[in-house]
Amino acid sequence: MIYFDNSATTRPYKEALDSFLTVSSEYFGNPSSLHSMGGQAEKLLSQAREQVAKLLKVKAAEIYFTSGGTESNNIAIKGAVIMNRNKGRHIITSSVEHASVHAAMEQLGQEGFEITYLPVNENGRIRVEDVEKAIRKDTILISIMQVNNEVGTVQPIKEIGEMLKNHPAILFHVDTVQGIGKVPLSLYNSNVDLCSLSAHKFHGLKGTGALFIREGARLAPLFSGGNQERMMRSGTENVAGAVAMAKALRMTMDKSDSGTRRMKKIQTILRTGLREIEGVVIHTPIENSAPHIVNFSLNGMKSEVFIHALEQQGVFVSTTSACSSKRKSPSKTLLAMGIPESLAESAIRISLSFENTEEEAKTAILAMKNTANQLRKVMN
Amino acid sequence: MIYFDNSATTRPYKEALDSFLTVSSEYFGNPSSLHSMGGQAEKLLSQAREQVAKLLKVKAAEIYFTSGGTESNNIAIKGAVIMNRNKGRHIITSSVEHASVHAAMEQLGQEGFEITYLPVNENGRIRVEDVEKAIRKDTILISIMQVNNEVGTVQPIKEIGEMLKNHPAILFHVDTVQGIGKVPLSLYNSNVDLCSLSAHKFHGLKGTGALFIREGARLAPLFSGGNQERMMRSGTENVAGAVAMAKALRMTMDKSDSGTRRMKKIQTILRTGLREIEGVVIHTPIENSAPHIVNFSLNGMKSEVFIHALEQQGVFVSTTSACSSKRKSPSKTLLAMGIPESLAESAIRISLSFENTEEEAKTAILAMKNTANQLRKVMN
Repeated sequence: MIYFDNSATTRPYKEALDSFLTVSSEYFGNPSSLHSMGGQAEKLLSQAREQVAKLLKVKAAEIYFTSGGTESNNIAIKGAVIMNRNKGRHIITSSVEHASVHAAMEQLGQEGFEITYLPVNENGRIRVEDVEKAIRKDTILISIMQVNNEVGTVQPIKEIGEMLKNHPAILFHVDTVQGIGKVPLSLYNSNVDLCSLSAHKFHGLKGTGALFIREGARLAPLFSGGNQERMMRSGTENVAGAVAMAKALRMTMDKSDSGTRRMKKIQTILRTGLREIEGVVIHTPIENSAPHIVNFSLNGMKSEVFIHALEQQGVFVSTTSACSSKRKSPSKTLLAMGIPESLAESAIRISLSFENTEEEAKTAILAMKNTANQLRKVMN
Repeated sequence: MIYFDNSATTRPYKEALDSFLTVSSEYFGNPSSLHSMGGQAEKLLSQAREQVAKLLKVKAAEIYFTSGGTESNNIAIKGAVIMNRNKGRHIITSSVEHASVHAAMEQLGQEGFEITYLPVNENGRIRVEDVEKAIRKDTILISIMQVNNEVGTVQPIKEIGEMLKNHPAILFHVDTVQGIGKVPLSLYNSNVDLCSLSAHKFHGLKGTGALFIREGARLAPLFSGGNQERMMRSGTENVAGAVAMAKALRMTMDKSDSGTRRMKKIQTILRTGLREIEGVVIHTPIENSAPHIVNFSLNGMKSEVFIHALEQQGVFVSTTSACSSKRKSPSKTLLAMGIPESLAESAIRISLSFENTEEEAKTAILAMKNTANQLRKVMN
């Protein structure tokens, strides 16, 4: 089996699962309990927080554990605008954000906030000048993803952050769910106020994530209750999940250099191989793109047909994002890039992890060539 | 070690952890992915949903997986009032709810909703007549816990539900986080619209929970995004967590009859033993109380001092609820019951699971007697 759908989810690292198991069975106390079992759990949670903070080069007090990327994005966006709604009602985002950001924006739009959706160029990239031009006196939040989940385009986060130094009152949220460990991001240098992570995208466990909230930035919580996570996220902490996340993030960061180098080689093999298949159009740009995603269309072939046929050969890829795949509407990102709808309906996303090999890429290319040939024969 | 803090959190069942491990490592696909690995994960999720539904005697389509009790309570309450705010702005709750309900109400109060906090009698129980009297034309939601987390009082859920048959437009939310498996609750017969569960309170895993939403009841989601959980709760589903929760719930329900019988015996041992300790006042009522909680004060002794000393003898108990224990303010529930503040500051909660034994209770009583004697000597 060749698993090339790592942007949907990754196989958890054994070490992360082992940590989860140990904490869940041996240190199962509630971190809020006053006795030593509570204290042990709280200590493990603090250590996990410190570890995540260190890996992101920020302070432990700036890391908040959540149930995943969608929650992190929702807390960041809704929490920021609820807290700052008296200062203004204008928000800037891009037209290619993840569903959890896009849907949050739509919901806020219905609540009376005004949303500017920035366009992207043919490579799926926004322009810093467009962000700057969109800023108004009543802009309270800018939310831009670091790496697009469908085509892998990297957005100019650092440049936007630089520009925003002239607008200190605006909160800058970055969704790094697809980027972390694969594309460098310096939260402090890029002037980022809020940043979302999801553990199951880097071999941690589903149901766990984190939100970076820069010291001094203030959000309204979505969950009220026992005031865990310094009042930002009530609810008994998933200590074992947080520890497993810290472990997976450390392993990811340790592998980051060699892993991304290998990914780039694999990407080249895939690009070269794909170009040899008749009717293939590659959508992922060469410049400013992440090392782990190759998005392409096999002209005239519905994506679903192709991925099911490819699965017969043991290769697992996806149509667009997993979150949107069941809607059966063509990729929002590809349409925003100006790709015609007919071509967007054939889109396939290959997404790699540090565990994939060049050998797998070569085998997958052969499988894709076979599949394309077979399907063409059947259809003619 | 005698673990008597099960209302804070329970030790996960080995079988639940095993299920989590198997699903996480072998069926790690994203349920939204179109390939077979996604399909397998989706099937497991559906099975878990059906299992939970069957155990609660409701439909699978009425079960929504969440990250825990606090999230379930927040979605139920905020989702209900956001969806129904045009129908009215009045909410009824009790003065002894869990922090996640109470804080959500306070937040809504600040947003312009009007909250009626019903009083309780000396046993911590609300009166059905009081609920009925509080109902107004603009009442949109009634939220009442089934079992109080601090003293164990069981509220008249069925009677409230009966009465509410005359008020079909009002949504009825019940927090059964402390009650499930220990105190019978028929969601349909009690006319319940929304019901919150937390898995780590019945030997499932932290970070997992469920919300029952009766067919036809409509809520606004707190998380927007990929529209998982039938649009009610976006975010990649924690499949392994849901499967582990279903397993833990099945085991809990299987043990329910014999387990609660044993708990009642243990409760009697504890009550009898505690009455022999000078200065002990038991707050948990004899009638209408859950089998797993005994709340008492050792007059004149700060709870923290007592629990730390008791821990030295290997017995783990808590002050009030874990969620509130670090605030160091006396139990809201005890104060609402009319217990003087000085006595409430000495409150200790013993909370049992089906794993506890009569032998443990006898040992714990001896330890409590010793601890009380020692502390009195030190303090005199």
